Amino acid sequence: VDPALEPLARHHLDNLTKPRGSLGVLENLAAKVFCIQGGGTPVVDPARIYTVAGDHGVTAEGVSASPQEVTRQMVLNFLNGGAGINVLTRTYGIDLRVVDAGCAGGTFPEHPQLIQRKVAPGTANLAVGPAMSEEQCLSALLLGLDLADAAHAEGVRVIGTGEMGIGNTTPSTAMYCAYFGLEPEELAGPGTGLSPQAVERKAAVIRRALSVNAAAVDSGDPLRILAALGGYEIATLAGLILGAAKNRCLVVVDGFISTAAYAAAWKMCPAAEDYCVFSHASAEPGHGRAMQAMGATPLLHLGLRLGEGTGAAVAMGVLRGAVNIYNEMASFEQAGVSVVH
Amino acid sequence: VDPALEPLARHHLDNLTKPRGSLGVLENLAAKVFCIQGGGTPVVDPARIYTVAGDHGVTAEGVSASPQEVTRQMVLNFLNGGAGINVLTRTYGIDLRVVDAGCAGGTFPEHPQLIQRKVAPGTANLAVGPAMSEEQCLSALLLGLDLADAAHAEGVRVIGTGEMGIGNTTPSTAMYCAYFGLEPEELAGPGTGLSPQAVERKAAVIRRALSVNAAAVDSGDPLRILAALGGYEIATLAGLILGAAKNRCLVVVDGFISTAAYAAAWKMCPAAEDYCVFSHASAEPGHGRAMQAMGATPLLHLGLRLGEGTGAAVAMGVLRGAVNIYNEMASFEQAGVSVVH
Repeated sequence: VDPALEPLARHHLDNLTKPRGSLGVLENLAAKVFCIQGGGTPVVDPARIYTVAGDHGVTAEGVSASPQEVTRQMVLNFLNGGAGINVLTRTYGIDLRVVDAGCAGGTFPEHPQLIQRKVAPGTANLAVGPAMSEEQCLSALLLGLDLADAAHAEGVRVIGTGEMGIGNTTPSTAMYCAYFGLEPEELAGPGTGLSPQAVERKAAVIRRALSVNAAAVDSGDPLRILAALGGYEIATLAGLILGAAKNRCLVVVDGFISTAAYAAAWKMCPAAEDYCVFSHASAEPGHGRAMQAMGATPLLHLGLRLGEGTGAAVAMGVLRGAVNIYNEMASFEQAGVSVVH
Repeated sequence: VDPALEPLARHHLDNLTKPRGSLGVLENLAAKVFCIQGGGTPVVDPARIYTVAGDHGVTAEGVSASPQEVTRQMVLNFLNGGAGINVLTRTYGIDLRVVDAGCAGGTFPEHPQLIQRKVAPGTANLAVGPAMSEEQCLSALLLGLDLADAAHAEGVRVIGTGEMGIGNTTPSTAMYCAYFGLEPEELAGPGTGLSPQAVERKAAVIRRALSVNAAAVDSGDPLRILAALGGYEIATLAGLILGAAKNRCLVVVDGFISTAAYAAAWKMCPAAEDYCVFSHASAEPGHGRAMQAMGATPLLHLGLRLGEGTGAAVAMGVLRGAVNIYNEMASFEQAGVSVVH
């Protein structure tokens, strides 16, 4: 992102009929889109969310309140239009694509919104060894890059991240610990609804995963850590974020799991930061600590902890307002309003 | 609001395909609309914002960075569609009405969105005496009640508050001080852009206003305080909030000035609280303190300080997502998803 563009955006915003900076974060968002898109008229439509699904071998350790079969059931719910992400993408005029990057079981029935690119039918149990081989992890990363390129080729201007994968707060928490030197006990949370005792057991599983995968963790290599502790949907989203940045496309990052994907992307390529907006502060308790470790600031504080891209969808609704402000408000001169200093 | 309705709303939300409570504030908003509307399908459309304008004699004390003529210029900007509130109401599909409750000068050209019900051409200077007579204040309150009744009669389901009035952070701050025993020095802020020294002078003007109007302040009578320290747009919005509550209509309260109108309404009728959502935490520094005094929690934290109803408009966009979640998501049974406990 060219740093010379920011003052141009601010100059434009400062001439609109409002006290300087009085639209706060909306102005920042509009300026960010302007800069990412290289100047000109900032555009956020068409917008698309990729909700990427994958399963996790670590569910064998009892780390989730939900059974693994729910991942597949929810993919079918997405295709039938009944899930939270369906409602919110319809509400805010966002295109939704569902991606099978690594669900357990076989293929799904064909559907126009479904992209079937299963790398493997679920990860291995990261508490006993690496979740993925580095080759599998790279396949998922490249899938994400492909999705970003496809969106770019189809004219999409803003990409949102979403995911579905029973058990995936566990790999996400393990990744935060490995990338930022945090402790499982301070980050582990209830996910879909664990009891406090079960959260303690989950933290112990994550500690074991970090120990079993110590060679990868100690290497500090972001790709090795992602392979050892991540998941197919997480690696795909990391690739999606990198691919979107490559294409100068704004990414709206969803919650706890998407932010773990962002962490992997950011460790691989810190410039990805310039292309991302963090949609919301998750109610999953470790999210705030992880965001702090990256200096990331969330846009919304709505107590969401569903995933799927739901926070990204709401944030895209706010983003549309921000960009319309930039493009449609009258200047002081146009409106004949005395300039407010 | 019937307290028996809340468990019905929660029961419905808990059967949708998501972990219980995982859509956080969106679930709370949907439940609130359900309860306010007496059960059934919660509806937020059509939604309307009333942006009410008035002028303030206290501008003679140099309490604003903007000249008083900007109030009128901005009303014309609203009618021409070029202001922030125009852009955001268009973005979120909200009907906008502009009300002249007390602008200085004569009438405006007729316009289908404009309601001309000027009580007087601006308030008197509250630093030297009451801003309004009690009769004038009552006229403005009744105007607000009329606006609420008109919206109700036209089928409007959600009402947002907005205002325009150069100088109106000063009466708002004075009202907060009088209602909640707060000090002008801790609440006064820059408004459209005062320097720190000018904010000090503004606090001194507010202290003088409280002293000059001590009889009203000490009476504790919410109407006398509103008349002595408020403004025409503020009193109209207080009436609008009371009228909306009377009609079982949700009110989305905008920022610093709208919240002062809410404070007056709440002091007159505490049950108004059940019908209000506080759209955002204003960047005007005293807003947080005033909200705290009323136990009010803001929905969004976007650093807005423009007024006009801009924060209410963005919040209405979020509200639409919340209600659609309630109405459109599949249940566990419908979707064939294993129940998450």
